[in-house]
Amino acid sequence: MSYDIIVLGSGPGGYVAAIRASQLGLKTAIVERESLGGICLNWGCIPTKALLKSANVFEYINHASDYGINVKGAEADFEGMIKRSRGVAEGMSNGIQFLMKKNKIDVIKGTGKLLPGKKIVVTDADGKTTEVAALKGIIIATGARSRQLPNLPQDGKKVIGYREAMSLPKQPKSLVVVGSGAIGVEFAYFYHSLGTDVTIVEFMPNIVPVEDEEVSKQLERTFKKKGMKIMTNSSVEAVDTSGKGCVVKVKTAKGEETIECDVVLSAVGIETNIQGIGLEDVGIATDKGKVLVNDYYQTNIPGYYAIGDIVPGPALAHVASAEGIICVEKIAGHSPEALDYGNIPGCTYCSPEIASVGYTEKAAKDAGFDIKVGKFPFSASGKASAAGAKDGFVKLIFDAKYGELLGGHMIGANVTEMIAEIVAVRKLEVTGHELIKTVHPHPTMSEAVMEAAAAAYDEVIHL
Amino acid sequence: MSYDIIVLGSGPGGYVAAIRASQLGLKTAIVERESLGGICLNWGCIPTKALLKSANVFEYINHASDYGINVKGAEADFEGMIKRSRGVAEGMSNGIQFLMKKNKIDVIKGTGKLLPGKKIVVTDADGKTTEVAALKGIIIATGARSRQLPNLPQDGKKVIGYREAMSLPKQPKSLVVVGSGAIGVEFAYFYHSLGTDVTIVEFMPNIVPVEDEEVSKQLERTFKKKGMKIMTNSSVEAVDTSGKGCVVKVKTAKGEETIECDVVLSAVGIETNIQGIGLEDVGIATDKGKVLVNDYYQTNIPGYYAIGDIVPGPALAHVASAEGIICVEKIAGHSPEALDYGNIPGCTYCSPEIASVGYTEKAAKDAGFDIKVGKFPFSASGKASAAGAKDGFVKLIFDAKYGELLGGHMIGANVTEMIAEIVAVRKLEVTGHELIKTVHPHPTMSEAVMEAAAAAYDEVIHL
Repeated sequence: MSYDIIVLGSGPGGYVAAIRASQLGLKTAIVERESLGGICLNWGCIPTKALLKSANVFEYINHASDYGINVKGAEADFEGMIKRSRGVAEGMSNGIQFLMKKNKIDVIKGTGKLLPGKKIVVTDADGKTTEVAALKGIIIATGARSRQLPNLPQDGKKVIGYREAMSLPKQPKSLVVVGSGAIGVEFAYFYHSLGTDVTIVEFMPNIVPVEDEEVSKQLERTFKKKGMKIMTNSSVEAVDTSGKGCVVKVKTAKGEETIECDVVLSAVGIETNIQGIGLEDVGIATDKGKVLVNDYYQTNIPGYYAIGDIVPGPALAHVASAEGIICVEKIAGHSPEALDYGNIPGCTYCSPEIASVGYTEKAAKDAGFDIKVGKFPFSASGKASAAGAKDGFVKLIFDAKYGELLGGHMIGANVTEMIAEIVAVRKLEVTGHELIKTVHPHPTMSEAVMEAAAAAYDEVIHL
Repeated sequence: MSYDIIVLGSGPGGYVAAIRASQLGLKTAIVERESLGGICLNWGCIPTKALLKSANVFEYINHASDYGINVKGAEADFEGMIKRSRGVAEGMSNGIQFLMKKNKIDVIKGTGKLLPGKKIVVTDADGKTTEVAALKGIIIATGARSRQLPNLPQDGKKVIGYREAMSLPKQPKSLVVVGSGAIGVEFAYFYHSLGTDVTIVEFMPNIVPVEDEEVSKQLERTFKKKGMKIMTNSSVEAVDTSGKGCVVKVKTAKGEETIECDVVLSAVGIETNIQGIGLEDVGIATDKGKVLVNDYYQTNIPGYYAIGDIVPGPALAHVASAEGIICVEKIAGHSPEALDYGNIPGCTYCSPEIASVGYTEKAAKDAGFDIKVGKFPFSASGKASAAGAKDGFVKLIFDAKYGELLGGHMIGANVTEMIAEIVAVRKLEVTGHELIKTVHPHPTMSEAVMEAAAAAYDEVIHL
């Protein structure tokens, strides 16, 4: 069987590329060994957001009296939360199945391996193989998995990755989270909210280390106030799982500490799925675990493209989708603009939420910019007061010379819905004063964007 | 005593104007007869948002099992909610007091009346009068109050306005809301959420009649599903309050109906506070209850300016603030751009929320535009599924010829935080494809903006 385009992997890179290809009139197939939607939809973005929503509602219930509500008693049904989360993921995966059908995309179930000559051999669950060929291109979108550290081997029971963390049979009494990127702090928040005793161990000096330092510090303060333990500048040396629970040896600046817990979550990043997929047989070049591509995702071998987590750039679902669309539009003969990797938002959905885009203050200084910084705390926001969500702030960084908005950093309730404005106006090359003069509706948390811009130019009203 | 600027009224128009004036080096006083912050802060935007948050949390609690939480029993403490709301308003009003002090603005307590010669006479609670004079200008920002209809006179007990609606001593068992603008539907949602039997009576064919018709229809569907009664094309002819409760006579398309209820909320709009403030003595021109001003809020009498609800344009807090800033900047010799009244967002904070800016579909067609419409329902959004908030959509209207974004209309969870993006990109003259190519973070509700734009250009992925 032959197609114009064959996509290997149906995550948010692959399935989006396939849909766009079909829209552009290309006959398309997609190969998937597990559930449609990939990790993001089945074991990542979506089911975790379902769990976090449950945690969020549970937090409201525990603070109901703050809002004038008497609750006689409430109990988290851990299994119920997991079940809901799995249901949401399944619903979304079925949605992708519907989209494949609607867009007349053939779904080939099985494990695909690249062959030379723009071919893929797919081995299904019964071991049966099928060979399919692409006329225009093969798009490799095989994604990534939880990274295994040598001193923290995952057994899937006591030392687990994100996948097990969202489908544990019962709630652990105590949890050590190793790594405090988005995945780490989201699960830390989730389990802590339900009453699990949570310790976060982070190698770097700050948690959520890619964020602006003030954001990291704010999250650390809030998490500590909630009752989590946070160990920064610390690393896990070994985990002894021979007993009933885990004994975790942590090297800190002050020496070694030992923590006992039920479960250890390894959230130290991801590694790409580029092994055993035939890259070597075709001769596709890789470097440091990533497939090398040009601005339009072409590999070194004509007719083979790669997108998503397996190519350089941030391993984020929305990046994979954008890459998939650009890749396919280029193949179809359009002239899409290359992706601006300097304007990719990142979101973390613990509570408070974190959202950011562009330069951190430190990165802007390191890059030699003369900057103006404006910060507006939600404690000064009327909407935040009314909503009982005064934690956090919006921080904007402008280039002092030309007024360019270099970066936006937010922590607080709903900020993951607010960052899109910053991404959009940066794309449109906004200046500080244009943002100040954009009438934001009152009362909203989004006013903090306008006020942060005004703060950078000494025109802030509510501070 | 004399000042550069004297502001009459300390609502979001007045106090913001005063702060900006002070920032620009002008010696400023503000006259207020009640609490600092005006209606918005004390009896409007802020305390209602506090109540709505309580209702929102109560709704979560009533649907806790959907999120995997067992609640043994929960009860709305109506007095507690009112108390919280009053506390939030008081806190904010104290905040304005702090800002006045910090900005060295003199607060003159009492009822102000304009005099010729840029003077104001202020009568305090004891009847003592003080005269103050302005060197540069007097800014009139006296705002508005609940509109009284002749056939619906408010007695403050059984037939009430918004002010009483947010401070009732006890929760009514049944409520008829007359008028379904933002104030009407917000209180309808609030009281219904707590178990009050709510009927909305709207004169126009649709509730929230200023919104895009599809938004109105969606809200009507959702409200009816929740159990509210909605009577459109209907008007209240009379209310008999002689008995224990109220007997409301409603004229409908099908004839007259009678509804019995505890309380009637009149939410039929506002009327401006321009009586008895000395406009006539000074000779300031008004028309249809509004003070006439130029683009920089100058009245016909030199040295007298007017902003906010009392001038033509939408009676919204953020408009008043923007007008106040522009007015003062112009007085201070700056060259601010005149306010673009075509790019003012409007928000309604019931659940689902409503947010919109620019042309509705009908208005765009009526204005003669050839349009492209893109709509993306939250039922297709992963984040909305995970959050259990699938009701609603984003609808964008583009000019087919030049790709200009004519309007944005949203209904759903959190949309009041999402509309700022549309306001900002409209200000920056975005085109449809620029919005499609703005990488929105996944998973967020804000992706619906990108998808709605894509839908307008037949490039939508998740539909």
